[in-house]
Amino acid sequence: MSFDPNQHPHRRYDPLRDEWLLVSPHRARRPWQGQVEEPDLSARPHHDPDCYLCPGNARVTGERNPDYSGTYVFQNDFAALLPDSPAPVDDDPLFRAAGAQGESRVICFSPDHALTLPELPVAAIRGVVDCWAEQVAELSARYAHVQVFENKGAMMGCSNPHPHGQVWATSYVPQELATEARTQDAWAGEAPMLLELAQREADGPRVVVQSGHWLAIVPFWAAWPFEVLLLPRFSVRRMPELDPAQRDDLAAVLKDLTTRYDNLFQCSFPYSMGWHGAPGQGEGHPRWQLHAHFYPPLLRSASVRKFMVGYELLAEAQRDLTPEQAAERLRASGSVHYRHGQ
Amino acid sequence: MSFDPNQHPHRRYDPLRDEWLLVSPHRARRPWQGQVEEPDLSARPHHDPDCYLCPGNARVTGERNPDYSGTYVFQNDFAALLPDSPAPVDDDPLFRAAGAQGESRVICFSPDHALTLPELPVAAIRGVVDCWAEQVAELSARYAHVQVFENKGAMMGCSNPHPHGQVWATSYVPQELATEARTQDAWAGEAPMLLELAQREADGPRVVVQSGHWLAIVPFWAAWPFEVLLLPRFSVRRMPELDPAQRDDLAAVLKDLTTRYDNLFQCSFPYSMGWHGAPGQGEGHPRWQLHAHFYPPLLRSASVRKFMVGYELLAEAQRDLTPEQAAERLRASGSVHYRHGQ
Ligand SMILES: O=P(O)(O)O[C@H]1O[C@H](CO)[C@@H](O)[C@H](O)[C@H]1O
Ligand SMILES: O=P(O)(O)O[C@H]1O[C@H](CO)[C@@H](O)[C@H](O)[C@H]1O
Repeated sequence: MSFDPNQHPHRRYDPLRDEWLLVSPHRARRPWQGQVEEPDLSARPHHDPDCYLCPGNARVTGERNPDYSGTYVFQNDFAALLPDSPAPVDDDPLFRAAGAQGESRVICFSPDHALTLPELPVAAIRGVVDCWAEQVAELSARYAHVQVFENKGAMMGCSNPHPHGQVWATSYVPQELATEARTQDAWAGEAPMLLELAQREADGPRVVVQSGHWLAIVPFWAAWPFEVLLLPRFSVRRMPELDPAQRDDLAAVLKDLTTRYDNLFQCSFPYSMGWHGAPGQGEGHPRWQLHAHFYPPLLRSASVRKFMVGYELLAEAQRDLTPEQAAERLRASGSVHYRHGQ
Repeated sequence: MSFDPNQHPHRRYDPLRDEWLLVSPHRARRPWQGQVEEPDLSARPHHDPDCYLCPGNARVTGERNPDYSGTYVFQNDFAALLPDSPAPVDDDPLFRAAGAQGESRVICFSPDHALTLPELPVAAIRGVVDCWAEQVAELSARYAHVQVFENKGAMMGCSNPHPHGQVWATSYVPQELATEARTQDAWAGEAPMLLELAQREADGPRVVVQSGHWLAIVPFWAAWPFEVLLLPRFSVRRMPELDPAQRDDLAAVLKDLTTRYDNLFQCSFPYSMGWHGAPGQGEGHPRWQLHAHFYPPLLRSASVRKFMVGYELLAEAQRDLTPEQAAERLRASGSVHYRHGQ
């Protein structure tokens, strides 16, 4: 019997996270009798008087949002991090603790309550890219790492449908980034790991969107069913270093990718996404490549998700369709939004 | 300002998984406006003619379950692993793949469709412990690792409420186990890491249940709100090595712990749990200690869960109440089941 990746269970290795995962392609055929999610199919008003992110409305602190037009950034009213928390004593190898200072901010992508990223005009998405870059530039002067991310959809713990993301800046380099620094630093190839990856994946079976400057792929080692890794096709370590042409192109690619996501199951597609730039501001980690991860939970339809539970939490991540099959479906789902036709 | 773990954000280190996490205790006060889960409060019949796990019923394959009385084990009809899948070629450092052979089985805990683990008599739970031990003994003769686990509740991807768990045996040592082997092997203390932990945690602020042979704690580094680590207070590497007294005691502790879970929010408490024994059968990993992890998702009530999303997936696990606070609440929730009063 010769190996067929679309038939035979096998493992794949993620060189960026230094972890293995189990691929069980034949399992996609099992019937689903478990939890059914409620897809977000509702139309929303352009302004919601009860939304604490809409222009002009009051927040829980009593502060009022300005009448903003593009993006709008403010300090999270329930921040997970504080700029001046004292540090614990750390002298016991079994019970190690460390200080954590930081700031959490909210970024509204648009004043329009009704629209999500794929539904915004490319020019507005370009404004979001600039805003992300500004936040990273400003906060990395004071903090070891600046994490830009978006939780989209109630299924991903998002508690307000107004289009927004977050920035958490920290005095420490978080776990995932520390791992990616280690693996990228140690990569023995001639080119940096993720630059070689972008070169080798171009025009290949795992491409979802390919532009002059950017490449969105379902990585060979994707754990989430429709996970995407968004890579620059040029050398760059951090978001603020992107030039205007690279930003324009990125805005168009973000619109294309998130539109394909919405089209796949004809719903507002939930995900968590975030940017990984080289930690800090200095010359450290010269082989680091800027990139974004998209982790979307849906598996079979707008209402059936992948559960990362038992075996996945206790032993090893597991997926039911191959990354190549996922990429093919996202390519086939098209770049014209199913609801707006643009 | 002096450090107060119940007020100040800080990081803690998990020496078993070799990972840091962020603790933000002050954040527990934020209001929740996001997704609301449906708690499992339904009463079920003792036998459901449509359940493919109940005695005497037909499964999707056409096979009929025997009229079993205690536990009942069968091969998963939609197994994620197959005993004889061929291996891929692995010669590219960027696209590494490996073979994966294995078996997946389902373990019915009881013929009674209506009951979950905490609702079973201790003698029936003792039967489940024996069954787990037998499965590990049998399958580890052929496989590198045998993962015993339970997904409980629709929220944890469980697709059938009949009390059951799973066993996945694999030709490889899965990711989480490989990490735990590395950290336990490398532990520099005089006693094995988890034996020292059991000794030092006894009678302490993170204890949930303490018996002659076992200790259930919310570990210092718990990521899930009410995560529990179940530890033997004696030296043991694998489940089949447990003697009758240790098994009796374990059954009682499992009933006590899962009853406290149900009582906490007065619902059938969802979780994923699983056993980590030393991989394989041989003398490797002499400092490995058998243990079980419980990963329950609920945070504030039967309908509000913790989301491991954006920051957690992209940067670092984060929790909103301290492990000490979680342990205190589980101790206070009592060992008399809120529904059955026994
Ligand atoms: O095999 P089951 O119970 O149908 O499936 C459940 O547990 C598996 C093992 O943790 C997961 O891979 C699935 O996502 C989950 O739905
Ligand atoms: O800050 P939010 O959007 O209210 O909260 C959401 O994102 C956070 C960061 O990923 C998570 O910690 C929360 O569990 C989630 O509900």
